[in-house]
Amino acid sequence: MTSTVVVLDAERPEGALVDPAVPLVHIDDQGLTRGDGVFETLRAVDGQVRKFPAHHRRLTSSARLAQLPVPDAERCLRAVELALAHAGPGGRGELGAEHSVRITISRGTPEGGPWSWVTVNPVPESTFRQRREGVDVVLLPRGHDPALDAGYPWLLPGAKTLSYAVNMAAQRHARTLGADDAVFTAEDRRVLEGATSSVVCARVRGDRRELVTPEPSRGVLPGTTQAAIFTAARADGWELGYGPLYPADLLAADGVWLVSSVRLAVPVRRLDAQPLPVNPQLTRLVTGWVAGA
Amino acid sequence: MTSTVVVLDAERPEGALVDPAVPLVHIDDQGLTRGDGVFETLRAVDGQVRKFPAHHRRLTSSARLAQLPVPDAERCLRAVELALAHAGPGGRGELGAEHSVRITISRGTPEGGPWSWVTVNPVPESTFRQRREGVDVVLLPRGHDPALDAGYPWLLPGAKTLSYAVNMAAQRHARTLGADDAVFTAEDRRVLEGATSSVVCARVRGDRRELVTPEPSRGVLPGTTQAAIFTAARADGWELGYGPLYPADLLAADGVWLVSSVRLAVPVRRLDAQPLPVNPQLTRLVTGWVAGA
Repeated sequence: MTSTVVVLDAERPEGALVDPAVPLVHIDDQGLTRGDGVFETLRAVDGQVRKFPAHHRRLTSSARLAQLPVPDAERCLRAVELALAHAGPGGRGELGAEHSVRITISRGTPEGGPWSWVTVNPVPESTFRQRREGVDVVLLPRGHDPALDAGYPWLLPGAKTLSYAVNMAAQRHARTLGADDAVFTAEDRRVLEGATSSVVCARVRGDRRELVTPEPSRGVLPGTTQAAIFTAARADGWELGYGPLYPADLLAADGVWLVSSVRLAVPVRRLDAQPLPVNPQLTRLVTGWVAGA
Repeated sequence: MTSTVVVLDAERPEGALVDPAVPLVHIDDQGLTRGDGVFETLRAVDGQVRKFPAHHRRLTSSARLAQLPVPDAERCLRAVELALAHAGPGGRGELGAEHSVRITISRGTPEGGPWSWVTVNPVPESTFRQRREGVDVVLLPRGHDPALDAGYPWLLPGAKTLSYAVNMAAQRHARTLGADDAVFTAEDRRVLEGATSSVVCARVRGDRRELVTPEPSRGVLPGTTQAAIFTAARADGWELGYGPLYPADLLAADGVWLVSSVRLAVPVRRLDAQPLPVNPQLTRLVTGWVAGA
């Protein structure tokens, strides 16, 4: 059960704690009936939420595309802090007590209209295990090239909507293949993104150290974690590259990670059953870049 | 507010009426947080649900793709009949007292697991008006060709999932353009389907009478209403055609309709602001085919 919930709606514009054990959502909420809403998932350490401005910016961009109102940054942050202040113990990893924080905006019921809420949960042990041990990944064709959607606002390109059925199905399919997660590829086998993460790889050739991610303009959701990693890597003297990446590039890399706000940088151990080099030192470096953001 | 709700879950395996005014759904229901579920919308006339077997077949097919359990046809039908028996008055059109019926299966909360529910609402006056007066439609590129998804089960091709954010955004976009609804087109301008309907057109050339719909294998959701219309039309001696259809084909047709279970056959009055021939006699014929199904 979700541990802590704060609701922002017409009755509670400043956000109020509600009992997570009591059903809260009407059966005709359009977030439920049509996946019609947007969200962000954030990480908190020792009660402090991370990368809030980047997440609020993307939430605002998603909401604008979906024509949904978004609570301003101050109200959002206060609601997050209220939920965190009342949350139970965080998950205990090497980096402190960690919670995952989710901000959701739904179109609501036809009568009630849009509303928002914040949920806070301890980061589960499975996430810490993935950070430590890495994951096995399968490449799954995305079918169409999402870049083709980029010019059409009604296709909500780059919006993080509640309509995640395909992302969830891809992860289930990966598990039926004995893997932990899925990475989408385009028809030409170009690597796009993970089902719920961005892909980042490292190339180290003597003094030349480079981080590469698939080109962000090609229909890939812009990753706040990938962006934070890249900013810190550049400050550390790394070069930055933006795709295209093919499976052979990942196999030839010195490290490949699935990166996302709560998982941070999870090393990819196997790609379609082929082993990838796993370098704990590089993983610590990449994790440090985002954990410090 | 939704008028009547019947829930089928672990506590109520045979379906039980619940109060629609009371929030029913937990905040961590995956139907809400990830659009992870499937649904069908049906029409009932004078308390009798129509085309139930076709809808239950498609619900079963959607649920299988999404790896969700589906209540068997008998349990589903009993739940629908229970809801209809307790529903308020239907919407009053020319065809009787009409209700829309929705069957939804959600993946539920991580602890509780999948559950289902049936909602029943009177068909609104706006639907009757669309049937009488027709709609103005804009063509919106679908971006990618959904046919490319057809071979990949993890993309849920042909499944009617709760992840409808793009369909809803397309209808909103159509309204900002002064139209009533949207029809998706492929990159080559081939007509695909409406945001929440199938497209059917009629060609009458002397004795040759033909109904045409975009080819069903090309990434278009198979329409139960289109299928019912085609079955009845063939019995009446019409020829049947399955795309490809281009905008010019629609402009040259003798009638174009958006067809779906509750709206039946809504004539398209204008396509991208160009007038289409509206023939009330043909609309009555097409409506009669599906209303009798």
